[in-house]
Amino acid sequence: MADLGTQFAVEVEGVVNARPESMVNDKIETGKVELAAERIKILSKSEEMPFDMGAEELNLELPTLLDHRPLTLKHPKIKSIFKVQANVAKSFREAAEELGCVEVFTPTISTSATEGGAEVFKLDYYGHDAFLVQSPQLYKQIMVGALERVYLFSHAYRSEPSVTTRHLSEVVQMDCEIAFVEKFEELLDYLEFVGTEMVGKASEYSKEEMKFLGVEMPAIPKKVPRLRLREAQEIIAKETGSGRRYDPDLTPEDERVICEWALREHGSDFVTITHFPTKKRAFYTMPDPKDTEFSLSYDLLFKGIEICSGSQRVNNYEELLSRMKEKGVNKQGFEMYLQTFKYGLPPEGGFSFGLERITMKLLGLSNVREASLFPRDMERVDLRFSS
Amino acid sequence: MADLGTQFAVEVEGVVNARPESMVNDKIETGKVELAAERIKILSKSEEMPFDMGAEELNLELPTLLDHRPLTLKHPKIKSIFKVQANVAKSFREAAEELGCVEVFTPTISTSATEGGAEVFKLDYYGHDAFLVQSPQLYKQIMVGALERVYLFSHAYRSEPSVTTRHLSEVVQMDCEIAFVEKFEELLDYLEFVGTEMVGKASEYSKEEMKFLGVEMPAIPKKVPRLRLREAQEIIAKETGSGRRYDPDLTPEDERVICEWALREHGSDFVTITHFPTKKRAFYTMPDPKDTEFSLSYDLLFKGIEICSGSQRVNNYEELLSRMKEKGVNKQGFEMYLQTFKYGLPPEGGFSFGLERITMKLLGLSNVREASLFPRDMERVDLRFSS
Repeated sequence: MADLGTQFAVEVEGVVNARPESMVNDKIETGKVELAAERIKILSKSEEMPFDMGAEELNLELPTLLDHRPLTLKHPKIKSIFKVQANVAKSFREAAEELGCVEVFTPTISTSATEGGAEVFKLDYYGHDAFLVQSPQLYKQIMVGALERVYLFSHAYRSEPSVTTRHLSEVVQMDCEIAFVEKFEELLDYLEFVGTEMVGKASEYSKEEMKFLGVEMPAIPKKVPRLRLREAQEIIAKETGSGRRYDPDLTPEDERVICEWALREHGSDFVTITHFPTKKRAFYTMPDPKDTEFSLSYDLLFKGIEICSGSQRVNNYEELLSRMKEKGVNKQGFEMYLQTFKYGLPPEGGFSFGLERITMKLLGLSNVREASLFPRDMERVDLRFSS
Repeated sequence: MADLGTQFAVEVEGVVNARPESMVNDKIETGKVELAAERIKILSKSEEMPFDMGAEELNLELPTLLDHRPLTLKHPKIKSIFKVQANVAKSFREAAEELGCVEVFTPTISTSATEGGAEVFKLDYYGHDAFLVQSPQLYKQIMVGALERVYLFSHAYRSEPSVTTRHLSEVVQMDCEIAFVEKFEELLDYLEFVGTEMVGKASEYSKEEMKFLGVEMPAIPKKVPRLRLREAQEIIAKETGSGRRYDPDLTPEDERVICEWALREHGSDFVTITHFPTKKRAFYTMPDPKDTEFSLSYDLLFKGIEICSGSQRVNNYEELLSRMKEKGVNKQGFEMYLQTFKYGLPPEGGFSFGLERITMKLLGLSNVREASLFPRDMERVDLRFSS
């Protein structure tokens, strides 16, 4: 067998025997048997490994891990991450369908910069300017006019010229949008249902992988604690002895602190934050009629990070036009979206989960890149640009 | 009630009564009851309709249908198309999972022109050239090295400066890729299993919609007829009295003829065509070792059109390099893909279905644009460029 090497694919014929007592390995599925090979056929060969693929942990620096993605993805520990990710997607779908949502497929090439701002990838579309969608927001809102409750998987793109551990230039978004919702609290119920069901079921489906990866099961409460932004900021100020009580958003550090609080006080890895300042949210977000400085918006935090964002939407045509004007959003590229409201859209709202972030936090990974098969950022598309 | 109008969203409180015998309408779900309204609240208003939304069929020209998409999608007949589409997606997933495939999420921004050629959308990626993927081909091949059997939903992009009834610039692709397949016939078994299961189950799930749309259930055979390209061309020549026996591919008219033959002779709306000329297929397609002029490739036709394409892949590193060279494919942008083979990939193959085309043919639509919520082509992104 001098011809065999690591990572070769082989076909083996032989007899399966019980292992001698001393050789039994409880850690692997095949630990109680061995194969007495009688014939081995090499299906594909491999060159020498650039690092030890047999080690229990790969322990590579992130850039090296990603530079050799086809190889490192074969490592049992890395592979398990993406089996769990498949279960997150599956569980999201099951939860969305339980709410009566129908799956829709929306385009990623658009002529509008959904969220405004400059962080869009521009492309030449048959001589016209087009953009990659920053979110499927406009299309899912259009769709509730027709199908009332929809869900979708979409890619979302942000040209963010910065490198953080929690941002990617291309992500997978899982969205629900639900019509005939009049009460804000109803939306929060749906949001929390999908969030906890998804994470809960995915963990159940992935029990074996979670154990193999040495990850604890998430703390899923009967009732997710809900705080207005200002309430959360009060708590954070108390917890930390200092605080940014009047900031328009939570900082990453704030998110960590409030999640620690939620776990300690409510036994919950989730916490819902509502009522972000209207100024800081996109034009389609409905201001709170009782206090228009704040909006009917929410984030769902999980294990120290925002994994979901959403809001009740402005569904009145005139109000939407004036919100766009206030926000300085040009109508160009939004003509079809605006038709939706011209011809009547019921009260509605929705939310959007990030697949990679959920995978990252569920498995305690330190960088969102580890939760993406082929992460895109400003430094890399498959290989590093500098290399 | 003078204030109410078409397409208004309303909240009604009242008493549900049985309809008088003479008013019963068997065609709708609520045809046996009526609501005696006691209180009506208007949730959203609508402007006057640009056409009659109450008609049983919309009967609009395609451009008008698409110009008013948020409105036309609300029509019961149009809405049903996309309920069926959701069931096609669901059934594909079920079939793929029955084969033991794990769902993966692959990027759409790439640095390689997957299939070679000029039909790519180029974008500026932080100052670097990048492309939208023409298919998730490279990534799904990488993934079978890790997970052995995978499936995925991806968007695929073609900058085709032509307008046909069966092409779009952005489509949804449903792919399977399966490793440790050595026999070509095994791949065909998988392909036909997924194809017939998907269409069969989707039709079952959509019985109500199919009936409402007046569409017949598809003819799904126990065994899908399989023909080599040359055999199919012989049959087509006989059927039509003329023929292009030595053409490298089937024409749209050929596809129609051979499907008619399959339905008549085998009671099948499906027919598998194999062994397309090696020259006409992408570099990753394995030539038939018995006759390298032809390749271990296949198309699955359904009701007169190709809905699926695939092949056994070249999995030997040196052979792949020489195939790329022959085809004039530059290695640039393929470095990571090539790593896969350098470190050993087992024998494998796969296939790829087009969601919009299946929806179109299953429902007898005359244009693939009717099977896409927001179709992209050279003339339109939501609205027409000329308008």
